Amino acid sequence: MSKLLMFEKPVGMRDTLPHIYETKRKVKEAAERAMRSWGYRFIETPALEYYETVGDASAILDRQLFKLLDQQGNTLVLRPDMTAPIARVAAAKLLKERVPLRLAYSASVYRAQQREGGRAAEFEQIGVEMIGDDTISADAEVIALLVSVMKEAGLERFQLSLGHIRFTDELFRQILGTEDRAEQLRRFLYEKNYVGYREHVKSLALSSIDKQRLLQFLNLSGGLDCLDEAVKLIEGTAGIEALDELKTVYSRLQEFGVDEYVTFDLPLVSHMSYYTGLVFEVYADGVGAPVGNGGRYNDLLEKFGRPAGATGFGLRVDFLLEALEQLEEEAGVHCVLFSNERRVEAIQEAQKRRAAGEDVLLQDVAGVEDVDTFTQTCKSVTFFVGKSTGGTE
Amino acid sequence: MSKLLMFEKPVGMRDTLPHIYETKRKVKEAAERAMRSWGYRFIETPALEYYETVGDASAILDRQLFKLLDQQGNTLVLRPDMTAPIARVAAAKLLKERVPLRLAYSASVYRAQQREGGRAAEFEQIGVEMIGDDTISADAEVIALLVSVMKEAGLERFQLSLGHIRFTDELFRQILGTEDRAEQLRRFLYEKNYVGYREHVKSLALSSIDKQRLLQFLNLSGGLDCLDEAVKLIEGTAGIEALDELKTVYSRLQEFGVDEYVTFDLPLVSHMSYYTGLVFEVYADGVGAPVGNGGRYNDLLEKFGRPAGATGFGLRVDFLLEALEQLEEEAGVHCVLFSNERRVEAIQEAQKRRAAGEDVLLQDVAGVEDVDTFTQTCKSVTFFVGKSTGGTE
Repeated sequence: MSKLLMFEKPVGMRDTLPHIYETKRKVKEAAERAMRSWGYRFIETPALEYYETVGDASAILDRQLFKLLDQQGNTLVLRPDMTAPIARVAAAKLLKERVPLRLAYSASVYRAQQREGGRAAEFEQIGVEMIGDDTISADAEVIALLVSVMKEAGLERFQLSLGHIRFTDELFRQILGTEDRAEQLRRFLYEKNYVGYREHVKSLALSSIDKQRLLQFLNLSGGLDCLDEAVKLIEGTAGIEALDELKTVYSRLQEFGVDEYVTFDLPLVSHMSYYTGLVFEVYADGVGAPVGNGGRYNDLLEKFGRPAGATGFGLRVDFLLEALEQLEEEAGVHCVLFSNERRVEAIQEAQKRRAAGEDVLLQDVAGVEDVDTFTQTCKSVTFFVGKSTGGTE
Repeated sequence: MSKLLMFEKPVGMRDTLPHIYETKRKVKEAAERAMRSWGYRFIETPALEYYETVGDASAILDRQLFKLLDQQGNTLVLRPDMTAPIARVAAAKLLKERVPLRLAYSASVYRAQQREGGRAAEFEQIGVEMIGDDTISADAEVIALLVSVMKEAGLERFQLSLGHIRFTDELFRQILGTEDRAEQLRRFLYEKNYVGYREHVKSLALSSIDKQRLLQFLNLSGGLDCLDEAVKLIEGTAGIEALDELKTVYSRLQEFGVDEYVTFDLPLVSHMSYYTGLVFEVYADGVGAPVGNGGRYNDLLEKFGRPAGATGFGLRVDFLLEALEQLEEEAGVHCVLFSNERRVEAIQEAQKRRAAGEDVLLQDVAGVEDVDTFTQTCKSVTFFVGKSTGGTE
């Protein structure tokens, strides 16, 4: 084994040490509890999927996929998201129930990274998918649940931005005509590179009115007012219908009592090419990237042979922890330290305390290099050493 | 996308649907609780590791490793076990604390399978590693904890078999001389192919006394008596010391009150080439393979630059579920079904019930194809449909 590699992990890979593990466990448990209390049922899918099915449907860039060959010569991928695998399961097994499916997941996903010290190549997502319900009630439920999950996870300051894929698509179609030109602008929006967007708009062969429409589009964020501004930029019914959906979902979110967390952001687009309607991102104070995102994807299930409307969200667990800032303290546990002649007493003491619900570490003094160093790691200590009576420190 | 592959998963890969998920969650939570109550702290390591470090140290057969290349051209493996990655972390970060480390894990591991319908290629293990304590107290603790975990997980009928690598090694060395010849016999033992073992022994160019010793070795299982029988087969001190360790650990397990679950099985060997002392397997009624195994591995940490004694065990979560037989029933949740005009009432009803700790599914009737089919999936239903007053069914 090369000395250089001895302790190293692949690019983007991380260890989770005990104090972070415990914090994460509590955040995940709170989030999962919230999801279950809304009637969502958890499922798991494999880490490896066929490239031809889930790899293709996931819409993550090809160069971000971890690929390998199985012993039968098929190309496999480490799942880059959970939405496509869940769509596979829903289509294959669950949609025959012919009722809306509320599914939840808590799982690691994998995206290859090119540089050391950069982004995580493995990260945990926790989220839900609501499959087989086309109503705006479903969109509103998923967003209201997202807010509830954030609060249960302990986050206080966060904001959800709402956009609509069909408004953007329609505006770009009306002004730009071709999908190629629209795609170029969408990329600037996805990268939140508004300077680049503006430069690019200025360079296009368009009337000054159309250029103005594309530039004003960038300002369409904030409260309900911006939807009225948006009406002025669009022609025909398709764009107006999208704006009406945004209004309707907002009024439903008011009914859920979560509207204070919601603003509009019409230039919001997603790199997930499968979204078809409402899209959203959630930002938490102190974290530079969205801690979660989601939206409606009505075309994905069709790729697995069962057309059905669907909506959902995914949260990044690492970003949630970053937003929480405070990690659980390592309190240590009670330690029972014994020497050989008093081993039975020590075992009994440990068993008694554990039976009473206490975490207790039982340690043979012969297995410890230095007793002082050891006891410093304990919350408190009971000694059963030598021939004297045991005492608690 | 090829039609054939549309719903398929790679060989050995499985989905976990909700009712199994919930059962598994409860089993894992119980096991994790037991481990924490003995002072073990959970950690996580990445799914991908360098082939040159963890892949090499893990001692899983090369053809069972899922390998891939990263964008830097290094060979990566999906972790085939958790012991080697934890040894990497312990050596790099934790041993500087210079106290015995009690670490726990609950994670998926990956082993490539060649045939469809055969073994799992991804399965969950839950286990502990006790690193930096060479005493028999440490071995006894890990075994006593294993028994405690099995009981907490809900298993009643299980049996733990104890063997000792150094006894087998010494016996084979004395009789066979070369490591090659010992390795052939070990393989029969590992496969529990006792017919093959006997045939092979008969074919060896050995005295009839030595052949008898090798055949009698196969019978060395059961209670403390078999250790006295074992003494008769071995010469010199190394083998006797191994037998003494077995006696000592047994008396410690009596002190823990778990000896009723323990028998000896001296022909027990493990495919994990890193074991160096006590080894054990645990069998549960109704499961054909061991649900867990473990033992002492005093050489592994040295591969990561920090020599230290260590012992631990891992349990297969899928086999635990198989042993439990009973899955959680899918009870369904309370459903609140509403039509648009009574949406606000419905939301309030759902929020009230959730606040009281109930799981409640809220469903717009417009999102449901057939109300009867839908309500059959509910534990109970409250209707807020049309203009009448809501009623619970």
